Amino acid sequence: MTDLERQGLAAKKAAAVLMTAGTSAKNAALMAIAKALEENMAAILAANEKDMEAARESGMRPALLDRLKLDEKRVRGMADGVREVAALPDPIGRVDHMETRPNGLVIGRKRVPLGVIAIIYEARPNVTVDAAVLCLKAGNAVILRGGKEAFRSNSALVDIMRKALRESGLPEDAVSLVQDTSRESVTALLQLTDYIDVLIPRGGAGLIRHVVENARVPVIQTGVGNCHVYVEKTADLDMAARIIYNAKCSRPSVCNAAETLLVDEAVAAEFLPKAKALLDKHNTQLRGCEKTKAILGDSVAPAAEEDYYTEYGDYILAVKVVSGLDEAIAHVNKYGTGHSEAIVTENYTAAQRFLDEIDAAAVYVNASTRFTDGGEFGLGAEIGISTQKMHARGPMGLEQLTTTKFIVYGRGQVRE
Amino acid sequence: MTDLERQGLAAKKAAAVLMTAGTSAKNAALMAIAKALEENMAAILAANEKDMEAARESGMRPALLDRLKLDEKRVRGMADGVREVAALPDPIGRVDHMETRPNGLVIGRKRVPLGVIAIIYEARPNVTVDAAVLCLKAGNAVILRGGKEAFRSNSALVDIMRKALRESGLPEDAVSLVQDTSRESVTALLQLTDYIDVLIPRGGAGLIRHVVENARVPVIQTGVGNCHVYVEKTADLDMAARIIYNAKCSRPSVCNAAETLLVDEAVAAEFLPKAKALLDKHNTQLRGCEKTKAILGDSVAPAAEEDYYTEYGDYILAVKVVSGLDEAIAHVNKYGTGHSEAIVTENYTAAQRFLDEIDAAAVYVNASTRFTDGGEFGLGAEIGISTQKMHARGPMGLEQLTTTKFIVYGRGQVRE
Repeated sequence: MTDLERQGLAAKKAAAVLMTAGTSAKNAALMAIAKALEENMAAILAANEKDMEAARESGMRPALLDRLKLDEKRVRGMADGVREVAALPDPIGRVDHMETRPNGLVIGRKRVPLGVIAIIYEARPNVTVDAAVLCLKAGNAVILRGGKEAFRSNSALVDIMRKALRESGLPEDAVSLVQDTSRESVTALLQLTDYIDVLIPRGGAGLIRHVVENARVPVIQTGVGNCHVYVEKTADLDMAARIIYNAKCSRPSVCNAAETLLVDEAVAAEFLPKAKALLDKHNTQLRGCEKTKAILGDSVAPAAEEDYYTEYGDYILAVKVVSGLDEAIAHVNKYGTGHSEAIVTENYTAAQRFLDEIDAAAVYVNASTRFTDGGEFGLGAEIGISTQKMHARGPMGLEQLTTTKFIVYGRGQVRE
Repeated sequence: MTDLERQGLAAKKAAAVLMTAGTSAKNAALMAIAKALEENMAAILAANEKDMEAARESGMRPALLDRLKLDEKRVRGMADGVREVAALPDPIGRVDHMETRPNGLVIGRKRVPLGVIAIIYEARPNVTVDAAVLCLKAGNAVILRGGKEAFRSNSALVDIMRKALRESGLPEDAVSLVQDTSRESVTALLQLTDYIDVLIPRGGAGLIRHVVENARVPVIQTGVGNCHVYVEKTADLDMAARIIYNAKCSRPSVCNAAETLLVDEAVAAEFLPKAKALLDKHNTQLRGCEKTKAILGDSVAPAAEEDYYTEYGDYILAVKVVSGLDEAIAHVNKYGTGHSEAIVTENYTAAQRFLDEIDAAAVYVNASTRFTDGGEFGLGAEIGISTQKMHARGPMGLEQLTTTKFIVYGRGQVRE
């Protein structure tokens, strides 16, 4: 048995205990984790500082250094986040659709934990705590495989969570960190079918592709977002400009940011300069079709076919002038990743057709794609945003970390 | 582009049309399919007779020949099945949890089709029609890959369904059959990530394993059932004997049949002869532990460790005497496949603990495991029985062939 298999087995045993742990016991453990994070502030920051030193020496980019960094405020924020998860309603144990069948069997569907969830993520220590407590609250054991640059921070955080679990009377193996930070450990995790019920990769397109190509365990794909805003010809153009500006520039690195602007040709000449005036505030680079260039001039770079497939994650926006709703819908369904798509329109039928015909996790009329988020959608907290159709689609909250089982009360019934 | 990719692309285009097809249009197409099956009886039976001849010549086992065979009654049964699916409520279009968020966004979850579903199955022509119409009713396109021994029958059935779709004004590519019946076509199908949203393998453990090891498309595992009946010491022993007899012998080849009997040692001496008296009616071979053999004598073969992992699919039953509830639960969770598990007991706490602690798709008190079935559970019809926890667990009806999307009605909202 490899170290990873041993870890998987320990997680599976812990999951069996968590499966029947009550809400009070789980919440008490979460509150203990929150307290322990605050009480062990110095140890967490010391471990993080070592990660930061090594990362600086290796020349990590500033944006990534910022994601790696912990300070007192961020750790307190993590602890507050844990208390918020403790305050959420527990999805486990609810029985739906319970009914008596003609033969007298009483059958219902009971919401139960998934079991063991594995999460692969980048060098972001906040995910270590966020993901672990969401899994715990839904009664699951979690195996964490964080980016190697955050290994010391993650080890400190996981040690604290394990100790708090133990002291709360729950199995410490409900949370564990993969100790091997080599690329091979990711691949090994993907094959651990005896122990892992669901694996959630959180990261860039490269990680997701590696996971899809190599996983034998069930996977929920997350996070790749090539999102569009389509300005239909009846749109309130000032509203449309505010929406594309927000969708592109409020936080361009995240998956619900817009990457392509589609504009109806009937309003392109009036709308594009309006939009550009706002996008210029962040020096957003525009890459446009010929018609866009004809309207906005040479400041617009030419868009290649490849641009329409690209999630820039930056202050870059592809622009295309389209002939109308049909072309817009066809474009979105061809180039999009099924994440978040918006139309701006005052036309009733255009709005309804866009909602019906766009194949994506979240479809908007007259609002920014940036709202696709567990908190904004009222799910309380999220473990990620699924871009697949199986099991979960869009922001995943506690309920998406559960499954059901049929429970059947009989009085001796046999079949036929 | 390979033939299979072309087929995938055609299915994806058909799925886009079906996505917005109304219930009336889908039902009209299903009724046309039912009628066409009956009207083309002679062609179907002629194609099937060729399959049967070839199968007989190749020495196919009688049980498999019976599954391959079509006759007038069976084809009429298929047509009636199609009409029953047409009569089921359409899950598509229902909007759940619609609410107005504090910022005025109105957000709901709308039930929508999965898109393109691929189904891999054995030489059972009835599955060709059953699976296709369930997928169609839920608004999906379906790519069928049936066992090669049924290729002529499947071709005839698919041609009839495609013609009926076309004449009903729906795209014929909503149903298609993989033309290449080599093993390689299965592997190629498993990699078709650009076109397939979900793949459902229906077949034996070997097929399921091949699929899990090679699939890059999302998969719903079905059908492997190593099911248990546990007779607790307070059980009504006559009821328990009827239940294990039904669970084992009413149809031993199916996945919800019992494979292992667990008996509390306090009642083993009284219960085992009762059970054996019934099981003997079908000359059921018993493979027991030492204690079982001590009670029932040398007619019982010794059970090896391997027996407790085995889905016999035959008149064979493993038997183990256990010390009580704890050992029974541990045994089921270790050796079971998470399909269907039953306890027979009059003790309230034992019943509730078994329901809570057994990790399976369906958990029963005082009833036969044989009831795990879409029809019996009130789902109307089923495409298979999922033994995984993601997306669907247990019998899968129309709703499990769908997903959701968030629809968001705004009035210009931007984030932050």
